[in-house]
Amino acid sequence: MVKLMRKICVVIANRAEYSRLKSVLKEITNNTSLELILIVTSSLLLEEYGKTIDSIKNDGFHVDAVARTVVSGGDLPAMVKSVGLCCLELPTLYEFFKPDIIIVGFDRFDSFGAAIAASLMNIPLAHIQGGELTGTIDENLRHAMTKLSHIHFPATQKSAERIIRMGENPERVFNVGCPSVDIIKSVVIGSKKELCNKYNLNPDQPFIIWIQHPVTTEFEFTHSQVIESLEAILELDIQTIGIYPNIDAGSKDIINEIEKIKANKKNKKIQFYHHIPFEDFIILLAHSDCIVGNSSSGIRESCYFGIPSVNIGTRQNRRECGSNVITIGNNKEEIRNTISKCLDHGRYKPEYIYGTGKAAEKIVKVLDEIDLEGIIHKEFFE
Amino acid sequence: MVKLMRKICVVIANRAEYSRLKSVLKEITNNTSLELILIVTSSLLLEEYGKTIDSIKNDGFHVDAVARTVVSGGDLPAMVKSVGLCCLELPTLYEFFKPDIIIVGFDRFDSFGAAIAASLMNIPLAHIQGGELTGTIDENLRHAMTKLSHIHFPATQKSAERIIRMGENPERVFNVGCPSVDIIKSVVIGSKKELCNKYNLNPDQPFIIWIQHPVTTEFEFTHSQVIESLEAILELDIQTIGIYPNIDAGSKDIINEIEKIKANKKNKKIQFYHHIPFEDFIILLAHSDCIVGNSSSGIRESCYFGIPSVNIGTRQNRRECGSNVITIGNNKEEIRNTISKCLDHGRYKPEYIYGTGKAAEKIVKVLDEIDLEGIIHKEFFE
Amino acid sequence: MVKLMRKICVVIANRAEYSRLKSVLKEITNNTSLELILIVTSSLLLEEYGKTIDSIKNDGFHVDAVARTVVSGGDLPAMVKSVGLCCLELPTLYEFFKPDIIIVGFDRFDSFGAAIAASLMNIPLAHIQGGELTGTIDENLRHAMTKLSHIHFPATQKSAERIIRMGENPERVFNVGCPSVDIIKSVVIGSKKELCNKYNLNPDQPFIIWIQHPVTTEFEFTHSQVIESLEAILELDIQTIGIYPNIDAGSKDIINEIEKIKANKKNKKIQFYHHIPFEDFIILLAHSDCIVGNSSSGIRESCYFGIPSVNIGTRQNRRECGSNVITIGNNKEEIRNTISKCLDHGRYKPEYIYGTGKAAEKIVKVLDEIDLEGIIHKEFFE
Amino acid sequence: MVKLMRKICVVIANRAEYSRLKSVLKEITNNTSLELILIVTSSLLLEEYGKTIDSIKNDGFHVDAVARTVVSGGDLPAMVKSVGLCCLELPTLYEFFKPDIIIVGFDRFDSFGAAIAASLMNIPLAHIQGGELTGTIDENLRHAMTKLSHIHFPATQKSAERIIRMGENPERVFNVGCPSVDIIKSVVIGSKKELCNKYNLNPDQPFIIWIQHPVTTEFEFTHSQVIESLEAILELDIQTIGIYPNIDAGSKDIINEIEKIKANKKNKKIQFYHHIPFEDFIILLAHSDCIVGNSSSGIRESCYFGIPSVNIGTRQNRRECGSNVITIGNNKEEIRNTISKCLDHGRYKPEYIYGTGKAAEKIVKVLDEIDLEGIIHKEFFE
Repeated sequence: MVKLMRKICVVIANRAEYSRLKSVLKEITNNTSLELILIVTSSLLLEEYGKTIDSIKNDGFHVDAVARTVVSGGDLPAMVKSVGLCCLELPTLYEFFKPDIIIVGFDRFDSFGAAIAASLMNIPLAHIQGGELTGTIDENLRHAMTKLSHIHFPATQKSAERIIRMGENPERVFNVGCPSVDIIKSVVIGSKKELCNKYNLNPDQPFIIWIQHPVTTEFEFTHSQVIESLEAILELDIQTIGIYPNIDAGSKDIINEIEKIKANKKNKKIQFYHHIPFEDFIILLAHSDCIVGNSSSGIRESCYFGIPSVNIGTRQNRRECGSNVITIGNNKEEIRNTISKCLDHGRYKPEYIYGTGKAAEKIVKVLDEIDLEGIIHKEFFE
Repeated sequence: MVKLMRKICVVIANRAEYSRLKSVLKEITNNTSLELILIVTSSLLLEEYGKTIDSIKNDGFHVDAVARTVVSGGDLPAMVKSVGLCCLELPTLYEFFKPDIIIVGFDRFDSFGAAIAASLMNIPLAHIQGGELTGTIDENLRHAMTKLSHIHFPATQKSAERIIRMGENPERVFNVGCPSVDIIKSVVIGSKKELCNKYNLNPDQPFIIWIQHPVTTEFEFTHSQVIESLEAILELDIQTIGIYPNIDAGSKDIINEIEKIKANKKNKKIQFYHHIPFEDFIILLAHSDCIVGNSSSGIRESCYFGIPSVNIGTRQNRRECGSNVITIGNNKEEIRNTISKCLDHGRYKPEYIYGTGKAAEKIVKVLDEIDLEGIIHKEFFE
Repeated sequence: MVKLMRKICVVIANRAEYSRLKSVLKEITNNTSLELILIVTSSLLLEEYGKTIDSIKNDGFHVDAVARTVVSGGDLPAMVKSVGLCCLELPTLYEFFKPDIIIVGFDRFDSFGAAIAASLMNIPLAHIQGGELTGTIDENLRHAMTKLSHIHFPATQKSAERIIRMGENPERVFNVGCPSVDIIKSVVIGSKKELCNKYNLNPDQPFIIWIQHPVTTEFEFTHSQVIESLEAILELDIQTIGIYPNIDAGSKDIINEIEKIKANKKNKKIQFYHHIPFEDFIILLAHSDCIVGNSSSGIRESCYFGIPSVNIGTRQNRRECGSNVITIGNNKEEIRNTISKCLDHGRYKPEYIYGTGKAAEKIVKVLDEIDLEGIIHKEFFE
Repeated sequence: MVKLMRKICVVIANRAEYSRLKSVLKEITNNTSLELILIVTSSLLLEEYGKTIDSIKNDGFHVDAVARTVVSGGDLPAMVKSVGLCCLELPTLYEFFKPDIIIVGFDRFDSFGAAIAASLMNIPLAHIQGGELTGTIDENLRHAMTKLSHIHFPATQKSAERIIRMGENPERVFNVGCPSVDIIKSVVIGSKKELCNKYNLNPDQPFIIWIQHPVTTEFEFTHSQVIESLEAILELDIQTIGIYPNIDAGSKDIINEIEKIKANKKNKKIQFYHHIPFEDFIILLAHSDCIVGNSSSGIRESCYFGIPSVNIGTRQNRRECGSNVITIGNNKEEIRNTISKCLDHGRYKPEYIYGTGKAAEKIVKVLDEIDLEGIIHKEFFE
């Protein structure tokens, strides 16, 4: 009997998801018994967030459909309305492509609608990186997505245990590690000199990376929080690669501050990028002296290299992290001092909390082989 | 110092929610330190589902706003799109009324958008009847709503434990029992003769109640499932009060079969109602000889009176139930035989799994007194 | 040089549009240099409005995509919101199929969104049956659609003149007659006996056809208006084929009255149909003794056969009509008397105001040959 | 008998509308028999388009409600979807506020949904500045809005005639002139020196104003068109006040070019503003030596002062203009030469094509006094 090709639909909503799911996309494409359907949504289509869809196409992936799902406004009601648009758009596309399994990313409002649509339409839903703790609204969405999903690919052992504790069937929970580690391992790091050349950095001086997203549950403090960080960095007068924030409510306040700094030509040591390809980011991180802000990269990828990480505020609150991470408050003095301390300390010993690679391979093996019969009739496991 | 009145916004989407939340609405209205904001949505506005908004107004409640959130179609994509409309409509209303706490009902797609909007907009969200098991898509939504909520009012001890197991803070989980028991206790049951008079029933013969909703994860079998039940009842030739289904995908198939039976004047012993006020329903149930179908009333309210309950199919799969409940498959013979057996057995001993009343009082006390400071910064409790 | 096939996208929203556009669909399909893209929306997907999509498929047309565009509620805000859903759904489909020309129907809210989307997306828009007068909200929409369109296919000479008067370029206005006349001419009318057999009518007694839609600008009077008509018919005690109304705000009030009459078994001479295939309708009309109500068929198709037409109320206010049409108010006595008078008078001489057929052929010739270069840069012609 | 206050709901979607409707808002506020309901939508809420809602509040107007109606993306499908969001949002607000008359602005996609909602909900709709010719998609929308409206306030005699020609009742067409002339007349122009001080201009040298919006029907050429203009201006090396474009599809391409110029510190003579208050703009215009681009201000307001106007491309194609306007193509040489010629020529004689003021007074008198009885039953006038 001929086995039909399984259609695996991957819905990607933002550049963080793309960075981590890229190795999965490749692996699906290379698997002859799977067909990839790629739907690109949300900020990936928007210039002000780097229009990552162009990179996706440049990377050789065929985009099967796009869905414009962002309601402008950049505040909390606009976020909810964007979930609404996503719920209006995706059913039409799911109905058209009739996927066997749908994969959505982690924990963000802009992929939440894609998960709701799959779950309510009885299409088996695979969720990546569930079970992690961070203590923000993202966490609520992440766990809600776990409860809507049928197949789970957590990145750590503790996350896997938490998913099971929440009532998911252990037979459908696969601790595969973080797919971004696959990419880390595939990247040729090269020499620091080469990198510094490319990014206009002086290789003889230290440089740091700064990424800070708004904390949506502290929406109204975004402006004051970002000022503390940026002033600390400017006072340190250190070479800095800054990266624009994601699309969460509050991001405009951060972008405004970035624009002000860019407008002032005195700030020569700090440069800002809308988007850096993940491979480049890995090379930057590998050669950097410190990563600062509240991106999950400061936890997840940094430990792989042992790069000192100054984790500011509550956004990564309870995420599992290595000894390279120092978590502090939104306070200029504290930020400045901790960065200095990190630069003095230098690199930590690598830790492999988020796996040692081959996550994509493991994920795709499950997608290919898992028995889908009855999988949507999910029961609370106890 | 003057304490400001707390604004409690209750969003109701369907008649089952209204039946159970009515005692809570009354209690809020009677509490002088709380202000009720009542938003009515979804099928409550629609004639084909009984237009319950009229009953709500007749019951003396002021409706502050309505939101049309139903996309027509009655299939799964339409359900998702209705969640989408809800996410587009409610932020505007929440922003306008600025509630301190939002209460949403149980586990249905038509209240899910209201929960998402509250959670993403950082408004404390209270969820009623979380933690229960049923083994359908409703269960996924119910648990997802638990993970989006900040205050929990489960109806049973086991449900409370399950909510805590899913990582919710025990200090925010209040086992208050089911508010519908409050209403049961407030209803004057009266004589069977009086009731039979009102509903054109012969008091000297037994009568049964039939309510059967579509099972959304078995969407495509709705038609064949409902036929088994209705034929069993017609063959038994027993007095029957049938009630129209809710708005889930598949409900049209059930409505079609009901219409066919109504069109055939030979079926004299079965009568159908679009909607029966919950108080009337309680009286009917109290005097009935058996309840048949897959409504949660067949589990929840029936045990209070010990009425034999024939629970068909998977919809109430794992809900906690008393010894009055016999669960069987979608099979005409089995249904007919089990109803007969139930009629022979007669009434069971009452069981109070869903509490003994005063749920609304307990809920409203919490809403009035709970410290909201920091409540939206929810952490996974372990 | 190879001429590429032109993609002609037809968007159909309701059964009246389908009836009239069917001959156009056939003609496009038969034309080897055109490719048909058929999008089906709105009430065509809904059971309560006859789910005409099934007839469309049975007629052999391939439906390329469906769009669920109806917000439930049946009132004026729900109508506007349905336009909104249509504007959200269709751009995705237009972008996917990339049509060269889009055709939309006449003047209804449920096709308005399809016209807006085409016009704003710079896709040449062809509009059928513009320029007619009726004096209702449909008229506003019809003329607004004319101003959004690039190619016009009016059905009468006066309509063509009116379109030009409104500033449209005469070179893009083609008086082709009404495509429904094509279908009339293609139908084999057959014997009255045969027809009466099929529809359970007594061929020796007269029968009338009744179709009454809500008048949206008199929304609140729908209920009282329909009662006048139905009571007049019941009092006349005449064989009647009644047809359910379209989806306009107010239609529920009409459906309710129909249901009441159906429930009363005394009303033996009146039968109601959710939907009658247009060919059957033509045969019924050809053999009927009178058509009553406010459907445009009572004007448009009736004059072709000279069937007496009792046109009630304002809905067809100023539509061009033959001498077979008597327009009266919403008054029971008047309706009863006028029907009687019509039955006494008998058939009128046919009039061909809406053409003598071949409309579809003419339309498709234009679609095939018209120069599209620069057509979207429309200028007010004066 | 007490006359009830009429509720006049004004829906404003962009800064051009606000500039022109401001005098109307003031006049309504000052009229004791009218109540103003102000709804603010679309780009007025967005920072990247100047967040004009803040100016509106600063000007002393109470904003009754906001509606987020913009779908991000900045391309044609996103424009249509924004019309869709508007159709979903406004019915709820209209139903809540129950206005007697709704006023919408001119001809833009972002106010079109507000017009559709009013018209379909049978609320008398007043349209300002209908009947003008421009030869772009805006023109289609403008005329479609005319056909949806019940009361017309054109700004010129020719426009009034065109509205009547399109079938509108002459008794409901009021040539009141352009309300922006009211504001022009109310502004104290002051000295050039003072102005130049405020805007960092050298008063001894000429300065020009540049505003260029995308032409949506030439969407794909936006980038190449704007480059021609900006390069011409840079080559002339003349003092320039540039203003950011509106939100039409294509605006991102213009914004990108502006950002590039801003980033290059060599371009000292050109400065860009997200938004200039209309009063300030009038003063700038009054003192400027030339206005360049395709804004309607280059036609409408410029003739009042006789400022030379270089009108580029097709956007204002056929708008009535004075002898101060020179229309040319999107060509760098031509633009540069025409600006030079204009500077040599100097000021023209003022012309009052768009009225001499008191438009707001006339409009509000009509709103106050017009008989609304039966007004929504609009008939084609012939």
